[in-house]
Amino acid sequence: MPAHVGEAAESTPFLIISSDTHAGLRADQYRDFLESRYHPHLDRHVELLKATARVREKMHDQEFVSEWHAENDEGLRGGWDAARRDRELDRDGVTGEVIFPDADGESGTTAVPFGAGIGMSGADYDPELALAGARAHNRWLADLCRQSPARRRGVIVAPIVGNVEGAVAEIRRAHADGLRGGIMIPSLWGHGNRPYHDGEYDKVWAVCEELGLPVQTHAGAAPSADLGRHLGLYATEVFWWSARPMWFFIWSGVFERFPRLRFGVQECGLWWVANLLWQMDVAFDRRHGTKKLAGFGEHMKRRPSEYFDTNCFVGGSTALRKELADRHQIGVGNILWGNDFPHPEGTWPYTREWLTHMFADVPVDETRVILGEAAVEIFGFDREELMPIARRIGPRPSDIGQGEASQRTTAHRIPEPRGRHWLDEPDVPQISRSA
Amino acid sequence: MPAHVGEAAESTPFLIISSDTHAGLRADQYRDFLESRYHPHLDRHVELLKATARVREKMHDQEFVSEWHAENDEGLRGGWDAARRDRELDRDGVTGEVIFPDADGESGTTAVPFGAGIGMSGADYDPELALAGARAHNRWLADLCRQSPARRRGVIVAPIVGNVEGAVAEIRRAHADGLRGGIMIPSLWGHGNRPYHDGEYDKVWAVCEELGLPVQTHAGAAPSADLGRHLGLYATEVFWWSARPMWFFIWSGVFERFPRLRFGVQECGLWWVANLLWQMDVAFDRRHGTKKLAGFGEHMKRRPSEYFDTNCFVGGSTALRKELADRHQIGVGNILWGNDFPHPEGTWPYTREWLTHMFADVPVDETRVILGEAAVEIFGFDREELMPIARRIGPRPSDIGQGEASQRTTAHRIPEPRGRHWLDEPDVPQISRSA
Repeated sequence: MPAHVGEAAESTPFLIISSDTHAGLRADQYRDFLESRYHPHLDRHVELLKATARVREKMHDQEFVSEWHAENDEGLRGGWDAARRDRELDRDGVTGEVIFPDADGESGTTAVPFGAGIGMSGADYDPELALAGARAHNRWLADLCRQSPARRRGVIVAPIVGNVEGAVAEIRRAHADGLRGGIMIPSLWGHGNRPYHDGEYDKVWAVCEELGLPVQTHAGAAPSADLGRHLGLYATEVFWWSARPMWFFIWSGVFERFPRLRFGVQECGLWWVANLLWQMDVAFDRRHGTKKLAGFGEHMKRRPSEYFDTNCFVGGSTALRKELADRHQIGVGNILWGNDFPHPEGTWPYTREWLTHMFADVPVDETRVILGEAAVEIFGFDREELMPIARRIGPRPSDIGQGEASQRTTAHRIPEPRGRHWLDEPDVPQISRSA
Repeated sequence: MPAHVGEAAESTPFLIISSDTHAGLRADQYRDFLESRYHPHLDRHVELLKATARVREKMHDQEFVSEWHAENDEGLRGGWDAARRDRELDRDGVTGEVIFPDADGESGTTAVPFGAGIGMSGADYDPELALAGARAHNRWLADLCRQSPARRRGVIVAPIVGNVEGAVAEIRRAHADGLRGGIMIPSLWGHGNRPYHDGEYDKVWAVCEELGLPVQTHAGAAPSADLGRHLGLYATEVFWWSARPMWFFIWSGVFERFPRLRFGVQECGLWWVANLLWQMDVAFDRRHGTKKLAGFGEHMKRRPSEYFDTNCFVGGSTALRKELADRHQIGVGNILWGNDFPHPEGTWPYTREWLTHMFADVPVDETRVILGEAAVEIFGFDREELMPIARRIGPRPSDIGQGEASQRTTAHRIPEPRGRHWLDEPDVPQISRSA
């Protein structure tokens, strides 16, 4: 926990960083940012989007979409308009943001061309076109970030599958252009392509470690060939496909080779994290279930949860109370929060009400870490620059119900702090002599 | 909960059913059960097994394997010898069993030929050969079950991917031959093959519903093309690949079309189940995160957890205290237990000690359901036939520490019963007007 947290008075407003926001243009509006040799491809891409609009419409509840737009039409312009965006952040009490692509969360009309948005998957895109689309978006995003630079960290879109060298060049270019929000890689590498434990990608991890750019996945992609049009399957599995690279990094020793590299999973919830850490640690320790295996964790020197603590983070976005109850197993400093602006599954424009519901009985100092301080450290925000904004717009602890007696009763009461119990009290009896 | 549970005296021994045991021959020993036209294929298969023995050896800790065999050599013969098998069950206090293939858990030498064992995957096998291997094993297993038929339920190996009609014919044949332990399907259908939501498989589900055979997956297969030789990745992911068909069944409406069908996931642990049910229910109810989607759950009339209650079960095998603590969210009657005989990651030959460690402070009536009564109902064991055996060999509640004050303190104390809290107390605030 950062040293300055203890100094913060109970009445100091929260410095809130949304580690998960979105910004972007309609596909055709990226033309000026796209190399001219790809303009014919963009024309065809836009035609394809028009032809498939009905399919996307069918996936969304049009009554909900209409109401959402009727209520928030002006605010939604913050998806690409910098001045409007700052006003919406202010209204929501959010001081800083980490910006992913694809402003439209309902119909995909504002999305990076050629599949290089949050649904990015090595299974589906053309590597050359995806990289061209990524460059166009990264250029546009750098312009957006130059307006209110202290508040913004733009995420570099990096379609690394299929063209490692090209992606590395783009990461360097975009970083030099001012993007500091880490990189976003495809959640899926795609059948037949190299998995993320492959040393081929070390060039990417090396440049990210060198430049201090966290590598991230963002919820969106899933294997459509498996799921078909079953949205329930998609909702059940989507966290897995974006979280999966994290354990590929841990078990294959990426963090031994690149000890200062950070990896983060964005908008996949927190509910699966504590169980995953427990399960990986128990396997690594070769307790009962894995003691017959050899060469286990040969690329690692520490327990999986230790790499998680030093090298990973999870962006819980609109974390629920059930998830926050696991925070001591996950590690308070490993959890980021996000309002997912301007997507309708986020907390905007009702972030203050959401925070009251979710955080009322979380201690103030832990709330400060989750809502902002962890992201300040990971993305290198300047606290001195941001605190004046936070003092102007940020909610105080008393504004979100902290310090009051909680009215909640049973189900989601946040329990007493209990950390990684499996490290102190192994749950496997040492009974057999072979143990 | 079965009505007779309440009648059982505190001193009545437990009727224990291991819903996860293994039996089988060395590949070459299946020759007499394999149609002669496949004998040349078997010869080549056995040669391949010899050539790749070193690879499998490297995956296992040979010191552990040596100790395991030195300690248990005689007992391990129960993997194929019926008389020895009954003695080992008796010694372990286990009255009945549901028998999966592959007796050898250390080197794969006793395994169904042609990839039709517990690692069965539509990604890896030749459909015709896998079905031939399955028939050979099913014939042999029927013989084994004819010895002590009251105690045994043999699982029909059914490689349905690639040859639905052939698999259906084999399910009917094996059922007529006396196998009553349900069927085991490949955990993975494999890239390019039809996923389990596809109506193509309805012929399989129909025959299983008709004959009262639960459909099951068993932990073992994983996508080797993704994981390479990283055993840690395998240990982290293996539950997912065998559990995955369960949500494909639920979301695609298989249980609406076949309401009496049961689906079970074997030896994948219990730790993920409560979170999965919570996550699926919240998605289905279109609370905040999914309210923008349309056509959600269009193949379903009830919540996912309701289909789970009526149509699914989870075989926790050597369940840990952390997992048993979730039993009221999972549903006590949906949990089976298994000793995994004769695999070294199971509880045999120390089942009594394991039960003491895990169940000491679980109420006796709930323990009866998990250890046996749920499996009696699902697999149609005859209680009247089995109770005399249970009275002779089964541990009494006092033998596994029940009724004594528990010495355990913090981490894995089994909490007060708390069921599916998310149904009564939704954790998503109704804040936005669009809700």
